[in-house]
Amino acid sequence: EIVAAIEARLGSGPLTGRHVLVTSGPTHEPIDPVRYIANRSSGAQGAAIASAARAAGARVSFVTGPATVPPPTGVDVIRVETAAEMLRAVEAALPADAAVFAAAVADWHVEGAGDTKMKKRPGEVPQIRLAENPDILRRIAGLDAGRPPLVVGFAAETENVEENAAAKRLRKGCDWILANDVSADTGIMGGSENAVTLIAQDGVERWPRAGKDAVARRLVDRIAAHLATTA
Amino acid sequence: EIVAAIEARLGSGPLTGRHVLVTSGPTHEPIDPVRYIANRSSGAQGAAIASAARAAGARVSFVTGPATVPPPTGVDVIRVETAAEMLRAVEAALPADAAVFAAAVADWHVEGAGDTKMKKRPGEVPQIRLAENPDILRRIAGLDAGRPPLVVGFAAETENVEENAAAKRLRKGCDWILANDVSADTGIMGGSENAVTLIAQDGVERWPRAGKDAVARRLVDRIAAHLATTA
Repeated sequence: EIVAAIEARLGSGPLTGRHVLVTSGPTHEPIDPVRYIANRSSGAQGAAIASAARAAGARVSFVTGPATVPPPTGVDVIRVETAAEMLRAVEAALPADAAVFAAAVADWHVEGAGDTKMKKRPGEVPQIRLAENPDILRRIAGLDAGRPPLVVGFAAETENVEENAAAKRLRKGCDWILANDVSADTGIMGGSENAVTLIAQDGVERWPRAGKDAVARRLVDRIAAHLATTA
Repeated sequence: EIVAAIEARLGSGPLTGRHVLVTSGPTHEPIDPVRYIANRSSGAQGAAIASAARAAGARVSFVTGPATVPPPTGVDVIRVETAAEMLRAVEAALPADAAVFAAAVADWHVEGAGDTKMKKRPGEVPQIRLAENPDILRRIAGLDAGRPPLVVGFAAETENVEENAAAKRLRKGCDWILANDVSADTGIMGGSENAVTLIAQDGVERWPRAGKDAVARRLVDRIAAHLATTA
């Protein structure tokens, strides 16, 4: 970390002069003033990627939901709670040379989430009506003007991991998808390790299971190499 | 705290020889392997009550959901996630001389919460069907055999605080209700202070807004006085 910090200061890293946007953590979608829908993302993978990008010399915008892992030092931290807030923060942080969408953004919010706590009434169960959230990855990957030259998404899957992730890459219009299996028995969601498959237009790379820091460094090396050859 | 620890060791506290059960924190109710319904309880008030009871010499069973505030030292910590798990842990911890139900237990769980992650499909929004959780406070307050001599509940309200809380006391069959206003603008839910009204059969006491530690000590003093005169 000291070497990385010195490299960053000396401007000698492979991402020096680049701006990298990283989203991280879960989002929380309110149901009422006290209840919300959350997910088990700890923010560990996103924080590791932001840290690795910073160590590689990049200026990093780190847009984070309410994660349990603290944000790394040396990055611009923008804290949000909901998916809608995250989209606004991402748009405000552009332009970027690369954008990595590691946040576990809620697909849905609760329609008409109220200012009044839902009351329990005998024999009555309230309804929670969901509505679609903005699709941040697809929105940014589909920008006509200002699209980051490299857009990276994540796919957290529990079944048919590679097929689902490859389909997601096409649907979202992003360049790379990092797919992982978050089935409960893998211990990845909320854990310290990750087993990732990188899916790009020209092929599939299965990376060995490793610490989230190692996965982050590998991704950042790939990003730096890609930007060096294309932009 | 040192004085309290010494008092506890010397067996000189007003709750020495007593067993106090305290529940604390939110519960998390799974929607699928990665999503869940949570609430904004930090567990701060419950932890403060457990700590104060311990300092007063009690043996404390501390049944806690996934709180952000760490459990106090010197108590028996039983960690749970869902309301159903909390009920089982509470039943296993009985008998007790007093039971304080400070946890913000979810009123509902998600029916048929699955092993497979809900997939986002275009134009389709999944349904979340809620079902009632066991009512831990009412269950314990209504026990024929083994009911703790003093059962204390909390009522987190956003409107008509005292009326709603008084009705809750009768409905649940508990002895005391500590009512508080958790409207967002009070900053109490997740904050460090609390403004509590104690509702008992023989009247209502409005306690001044104070730190959660001070509220806890006041409650523990009242519990000790009550047990001294009745049991």
